[in-house]
Amino acid sequence: MQKKITLTEDEIPESWYNIVADMPNKPLPPLHPGTHEPIGPEMLAPLFPMELIKQEVTADKWVGIPEEVREVYKIWRPTPMFRATGLEKMLGTRAKIYYKYEGVSPAGSHKPNTAVPQAYYNKQEGVKRITTETGAGQWGSALSFACQLFGIECDVYMVRASYEGKPYRKIMMNTWGANVYPSPSERTQAGRSILAQDPNSPGSLGIAISEAVELAMQADDTKYALGSVLNHVLMHQTVIGLEAITQLEKAGDFPDIVVAPFGGGSNFAGIAFPFLRYNLEEGKSIRCIAAEPASCPKLTRGVFRYDLGDTVGMTPLLPMYTLGHNFIPAPIHAGGLRYHGAGAIVSQLLNDGLIEAQAFKQLECFDAGIKFARAEGIIPAPEATHAIATVIREAQRANEEGTSPTILFNLCGHGHFDMASYEQYLAGKLVEHEVTQEEIMASLAELDTPLI
Amino acid sequence: MQKKITLTEDEIPESWYNIVADMPNKPLPPLHPGTHEPIGPEMLAPLFPMELIKQEVTADKWVGIPEEVREVYKIWRPTPMFRATGLEKMLGTRAKIYYKYEGVSPAGSHKPNTAVPQAYYNKQEGVKRITTETGAGQWGSALSFACQLFGIECDVYMVRASYEGKPYRKIMMNTWGANVYPSPSERTQAGRSILAQDPNSPGSLGIAISEAVELAMQADDTKYALGSVLNHVLMHQTVIGLEAITQLEKAGDFPDIVVAPFGGGSNFAGIAFPFLRYNLEEGKSIRCIAAEPASCPKLTRGVFRYDLGDTVGMTPLLPMYTLGHNFIPAPIHAGGLRYHGAGAIVSQLLNDGLIEAQAFKQLECFDAGIKFARAEGIIPAPEATHAIATVIREAQRANEEGTSPTILFNLCGHGHFDMASYEQYLAGKLVEHEVTQEEIMASLAELDTPLI
Repeated sequence: MQKKITLTEDEIPESWYNIVADMPNKPLPPLHPGTHEPIGPEMLAPLFPMELIKQEVTADKWVGIPEEVREVYKIWRPTPMFRATGLEKMLGTRAKIYYKYEGVSPAGSHKPNTAVPQAYYNKQEGVKRITTETGAGQWGSALSFACQLFGIECDVYMVRASYEGKPYRKIMMNTWGANVYPSPSERTQAGRSILAQDPNSPGSLGIAISEAVELAMQADDTKYALGSVLNHVLMHQTVIGLEAITQLEKAGDFPDIVVAPFGGGSNFAGIAFPFLRYNLEEGKSIRCIAAEPASCPKLTRGVFRYDLGDTVGMTPLLPMYTLGHNFIPAPIHAGGLRYHGAGAIVSQLLNDGLIEAQAFKQLECFDAGIKFARAEGIIPAPEATHAIATVIREAQRANEEGTSPTILFNLCGHGHFDMASYEQYLAGKLVEHEVTQEEIMASLAELDTPLI
Repeated sequence: MQKKITLTEDEIPESWYNIVADMPNKPLPPLHPGTHEPIGPEMLAPLFPMELIKQEVTADKWVGIPEEVREVYKIWRPTPMFRATGLEKMLGTRAKIYYKYEGVSPAGSHKPNTAVPQAYYNKQEGVKRITTETGAGQWGSALSFACQLFGIECDVYMVRASYEGKPYRKIMMNTWGANVYPSPSERTQAGRSILAQDPNSPGSLGIAISEAVELAMQADDTKYALGSVLNHVLMHQTVIGLEAITQLEKAGDFPDIVVAPFGGGSNFAGIAFPFLRYNLEEGKSIRCIAAEPASCPKLTRGVFRYDLGDTVGMTPLLPMYTLGHNFIPAPIHAGGLRYHGAGAIVSQLLNDGLIEAQAFKQLECFDAGIKFARAEGIIPAPEATHAIATVIREAQRANEEGTSPTILFNLCGHGHFDMASYEQYLAGKLVEHEVTQEEIMASLAELDTPLI
C-alpha cells in the first residue's frame, strides 16, 4: 500500500478554481458600512491592487496562475499526500484516511498559497509596502516570506498579547525582513484611541486589522493584505484540493468525506471547493465538513447576516455567518480559528445546505493531535487538530455503521511553534473554554447591520 | 529551469552504502579503554542489538534496508532537492548550487534516517527500552519519534542547560511519548557522582552519554543508541546522497563540490559518501568539504589519535580527529556540532587526504543563514548555516577564478526551534567564540590514550 503520493513540479495546477462560477446562489455583495449600498470594485482600490479586486468579483471558473507565482510555489508545492496508515491502525477503523500536508511550506502552513500571489500582484502594480495584521503569527510570517521574495516592505501589526507571549513567530517574520509592531500601536489613529482608553490593552485581531487598513488607506504606495475570508484568498488556496484530486487519482481513490479546520474559510475552501465542484457539476454527494472550535462557533451557532470584518468599522459589511464583530473568542491555542465571521462564499454554501459544519472542544482536539503525532509522526498545529478530531469521529461512526468511507483532510500546518500548548495538554493544565447561548445572543444583539 | 527535483517513494534507496568496502585504508578498530586491546563485536552486545553490531563491522559494500524501515522512511523520504536559484541570483555567482533538504522530516532534521533503523533492529531483538543522550535535542527528538512508531520506551538524558533553557524540544519528545530527564540526574551512579561535586552542574554531552550508557549496561531489555560517530550510524545516513545522485541525474547535472556541516560525521557522511564512491571507484575528483565550527575545530586543528567518546570513560577508545574528550566547546547555537571528536571513518578519510575540512565562525554562519532564508525562503538550522557559509565562500572563489562549479550541499534541518538564536543575531547580540591554540594544546596534553 502506498504511504505517500507525490507529484512533480509540472503537476502544480496552472489555474485556480473559482467556485462562484458553479454556485447555484452567488455570494451577496459587500456593502458600504455607512450607506449600506453595494460597493463596487473601485472602492476597494485604496486597499488592494486591481488584479486582486478583479479576482474578488470575477465570474470566471478558472483563473490562470502566473508563471512567476508557480515558480515560487515550487519551493514547497506540490505538497505530499499521505495515506494515514498509522492512524487507521491505531483507530482500528474500516475507513480509508488520507491527508494533504501543507506544513512543508517555509512558513509551516497553507498561508503562503495566497501570500505569494498577493505579493506578486502588488509588486506588478508598483506597490512598495504591504500592511497586514496577525494573531498568533501564521499569516504574518507567510506574508513576510512572500514580500521578501518579491522585494516589498512588509509591516505586520501583531496582536500585543501574542507579540509578547509568542516571540518566535515574530522573530521568524524579522528573519524574512518584515517590520513587526505590537498592536495597538502609537502609529495609527485607531491604535492611539485604543491606548488612550487602555494603555495596557492586549490588543485583538479586530484592532490590528483596523491599524493595518488605516495605514494602507493613507499612502499611495501602500496596500493591505488579508489572509482569509475574501473570495480571492479562498480561490488561491484551491491549489490544495486541485493537487489532491490528481494525487487521489494516482492512488485510485476518491473521497466520500472532505474535512478541514475552519477559521475565516481559506483552509476549508482550499481543500473542499475543488471537490464540491463534483457535487455541483456532476451531482456527486461528497460530504464537505468544516471543523470549528466550540468556543468560536460561528457556523454552528452564529447567524447569517451582514457584519463588519473588524471591530472598529473600517471594513465593508460582508454577508457572513457571524457571532458579531464584538464577539471576543476565548484564548484557545488554535489562534488561527479565533475569528468572529465566515467569508461570503462559505456562508452562502452553508446557508444553501451544500456543506456541513461541526464544532469541537479544545481537549478533544489536542487528544486527537497527540494520537496523530504518535501514529503518523507529524506534530499538527492546534488548528489542524480540529480536522483530525472530525476524522476520528467519522471513523468511529463508520465502524458503528459498518461502512468504509474514504476520508480526506487538510493537515494545514505543523505544530513546531505551538509546543507550549502541547506541554499544557500533557501536563493536564489545558483548560476547556465554553461559550454560553447568552453570550452569543448578547453579542448578536449589539448588531445593527443589515439582515439578509 | 527546474527548481525542485522530486522522486517518488519507489525511488527511496533499497540499500545503504558502506564506504568501508571502498576505502584504501580501512578504519582502525575500537580499543578497550582499560586494556587498549581491539574489542570484538561481542563486547558491544550489552549496548547494541546484534544486527547493528554486524553493520558496525561489516565489509559489505551494500546493506539492504528492511522493508519496514523503508515504509517509515516514506513519511518524509524521498526528500526534495532544490536548485538554489534565489541564492545564485543574490550572490551573482557563476556557480550552480543545489541543496538536499532534510528538514522535511517529522523531527526537522536528518537524524530520523538512523533513528528509525536503530529502533527497528532493537524492536526485532525484543528490546523494550532505549536510552540515549541529547544536547539541544535534535537527536533525542528523532529517536523519540522512531521509538514511538515501533512501540519501544525511550529515555532521553538531556543536558541540563538545554533542558532548562530550550524547553520546546523536550516537549516535542514528550509529545512522542519519550521520558526526558535533565542530566546529570540522580538516576545513575555517573550522575550522582557529578552532582555530589557540583549540585548545580549544567551538564554536558559527555556526562549525558555516560548516564545513558550506564543504564543500558544494567538491564537486559535496555539498549543504548547514538546519533552520530559510529560506522553504522553514518551508513544509515547515506540514503541522503544516494537519493541526491538520482535527483542530479534527473536534472542532468553532477557535482564538483559536495558540502555538509560537521559534528560527529553522520551529516557529512550522509551526503558525501555516495559521491566519494565515484572518486574511490572511478577516479573522479569531487571535492567533499566538511564544514565545522571554528570554536570546535577537531578536523582543522585537532589531532588524529585514539580517544574516548565520553568524558567519564565508559565508551571504547575510537580512532578520531579529536580535541580531547575533556575539551568543552563554547556555547555556540549550532549545538549539534559541539562534539570533541570525529568518527573513525571520516577521520581516516581526512588523514588520507580524501576529504577536506573548513572552519567557520558563528557570525559568518548566521549571516549566511539570513541570506539563505531571504533568498530561498527556508530558515536553516544553525548547524546547516555552516554548509551555506562554505557554499558562499566557494561561489565567491568561483567568481574570482572564472569557474562555474556545480555545488551540492546538505540543508540538514530547519531552524524553527532556533529562533532565539536568530533574534540574538538580528539584534547584534550574538557573540563570537574563539578558541586559542593554548586551550587546544592544554586539552590534548591531558590525553594518555594510544597514539596512531
